[in-house]
Amino acid sequence: MLNFAVGPVQMAPEILQVGAQPVPYFRTGEFSALMKENERLLVEFAGAGEGSRAVCLTGSGTAGMEAMVVNFLDASDKVLVIDGGGFGHRFVELCRIHRIRTEVLQLHYGEILTEKHLEAYEGAGCTAFLVNLHETSTGVLYDARLIHSFCERNGMMLLVDSISSFLADPFSMEELGVDVMMTSSQKTLALPPGLAVLVLSARAVRKAERTDCGCMYLDLKLALKDGERGQTPFTPAVGILLQLHERLKELERKGVEAETAHIRMIAEDFRRRIVKLPFTLASTSMSNAATPVHPLHGSAKRIFEILKDEYEIWVCPNGGDLADEIFRVGHMGNLTIEDNTALLKALADMERRGLL
Amino acid sequence: MLNFAVGPVQMAPEILQVGAQPVPYFRTGEFSALMKENERLLVEFAGAGEGSRAVCLTGSGTAGMEAMVVNFLDASDKVLVIDGGGFGHRFVELCRIHRIRTEVLQLHYGEILTEKHLEAYEGAGCTAFLVNLHETSTGVLYDARLIHSFCERNGMMLLVDSISSFLADPFSMEELGVDVMMTSSQKTLALPPGLAVLVLSARAVRKAERTDCGCMYLDLKLALKDGERGQTPFTPAVGILLQLHERLKELERKGVEAETAHIRMIAEDFRRRIVKLPFTLASTSMSNAATPVHPLHGSAKRIFEILKDEYEIWVCPNGGDLADEIFRVGHMGNLTIEDNTALLKALADMERRGLL
Repeated sequence: MLNFAVGPVQMAPEILQVGAQPVPYFRTGEFSALMKENERLLVEFAGAGEGSRAVCLTGSGTAGMEAMVVNFLDASDKVLVIDGGGFGHRFVELCRIHRIRTEVLQLHYGEILTEKHLEAYEGAGCTAFLVNLHETSTGVLYDARLIHSFCERNGMMLLVDSISSFLADPFSMEELGVDVMMTSSQKTLALPPGLAVLVLSARAVRKAERTDCGCMYLDLKLALKDGERGQTPFTPAVGILLQLHERLKELERKGVEAETAHIRMIAEDFRRRIVKLPFTLASTSMSNAATPVHPLHGSAKRIFEILKDEYEIWVCPNGGDLADEIFRVGHMGNLTIEDNTALLKALADMERRGLL
Repeated sequence: MLNFAVGPVQMAPEILQVGAQPVPYFRTGEFSALMKENERLLVEFAGAGEGSRAVCLTGSGTAGMEAMVVNFLDASDKVLVIDGGGFGHRFVELCRIHRIRTEVLQLHYGEILTEKHLEAYEGAGCTAFLVNLHETSTGVLYDARLIHSFCERNGMMLLVDSISSFLADPFSMEELGVDVMMTSSQKTLALPPGLAVLVLSARAVRKAERTDCGCMYLDLKLALKDGERGQTPFTPAVGILLQLHERLKELERKGVEAETAHIRMIAEDFRRRIVKLPFTLASTSMSNAATPVHPLHGSAKRIFEILKDEYEIWVCPNGGDLADEIFRVGHMGNLTIEDNTALLKALADMERRGLL
């Protein structure tokens, strides 16, 4: 299968090779050294400043999102949450569950965040900003510089889920004043799902250390402490951590900028060519990570099914109300221009067959 | 490396083979069918009764333990917890964090649970019993029949972490009146770590459905609901779930009893032969899963290090106070009598070298 999903994405042969190896016992100096190197590279690639730390939780991206809410927010906070799609709404729900006071900035589907939206919240006493930088459900990439200057002006912590934006779009925690960023293993890291990665600024580390998070499994205090010696409080997904190491070393060799440039090149090539077919792009502010595509004729979900069953290609269906309106094409992972050509050929063939 | 750790354990070539495959996109009918089959087989192998369900959480065993505490216990409960080692103590901590009323039955290291211990809690108004059936940290296997009859007499729910006992020791939820059992992927399932598996009786399903668990990621209501169509609320560890499927199909072919008999045979062979060397067994009530070994001379931790560095063999060191006193030898996973021979030869060689 050719994989254009937005996660899990197409994996490189070297990573699959590591997946074929026996999983080692991990309470060893060897594994600790590998974990320390993983942390060092994650901090570096996230552009995090002095005193920053990285931790890997064994879990889905949602475990990472919930860890952000419970470790960096407490009863003293009021958090501004951008609810512009399924994942933004999940943050709102998480704050509700954990009784964190919120101001919810609701955007309609595909809407871009502007200065005007934020005006209403200037000086409104919010202490933190919670956002999915790339709202993966709609494909909208928010303006990180706009958010940064708003947070700086208002003295707010900035917590970003950059789950499918990290490595796909230029990103630097220090430049953008980000206190916590989160991603997960199955997006641009192009590994199997099972790890949520959090990178914390020095300020975020201090906040986590004084927050009673109320959940042992998601308690970053424990993870930070054991991380000092390259270990984890609970048995981690050792196999995926080994694959992460392989991937980070590859990124170190090739450079993060080169990876981002590659994803952008794949995305731009696809976007240039798809509009010759009966589709429109469903967003005007896109991450390089994925393109939301609206078919002019026929059901998006049906197109996903036909591509899967008859062409051995995965694109990514949308859930909910938009299932028939939009599918997404991911550009992360081990994809080439030739892979784009194969997808576009399949779609052209479907058009010829009267299926589009 | 030859792996006698208590997790991750030695994996079979067929499982590694699956680990070498690309991870598929999972919001598909194909993956749902596989998940439904996983659930059916887990319920069957756990000997769970009519109306039982199984869910897989992406996380460590501790995520599964915390899910047990937050989904099946609430303010109306008082739970009797057996604190006989590191994992029992973790349950006590989890109950404290989530404000569940407890009675703690404290056992000293390696102590066996008896009728006498339980007498004090007869008619004491406890509503649930929480126990690590095999306290992996000390190697003690508790008497499940004793616990069962106590729970039945006192009308208590029985929640067991059978993390390294499931498949290693004869176990049937229905026969033992178990409401919830939990295991994780890296023990007798012999997969990479990253999944916690919970099997729920019909009564436990009802309890979870009316409990407000206060944590989105660990909320089994969501997992049970999406599980009805073979899906998960959040992106799961798809790769490990595929490996789980391969493993469960293998167990279906060979039979659970044959697997348990194999582990017992490996354990008994090892226990028969180790006592010819300067070691004693550190428990009189052992699971087939692992043997806690006490060296008569020298540090257990040092023996672990030498086996690793000079013989390419992993055994499992103990943490904390017992680090120098005890190491554990696991019998789970893809191990043979010849592997035992290799370990015993290495130890005999160390004795010859004056290291034991």
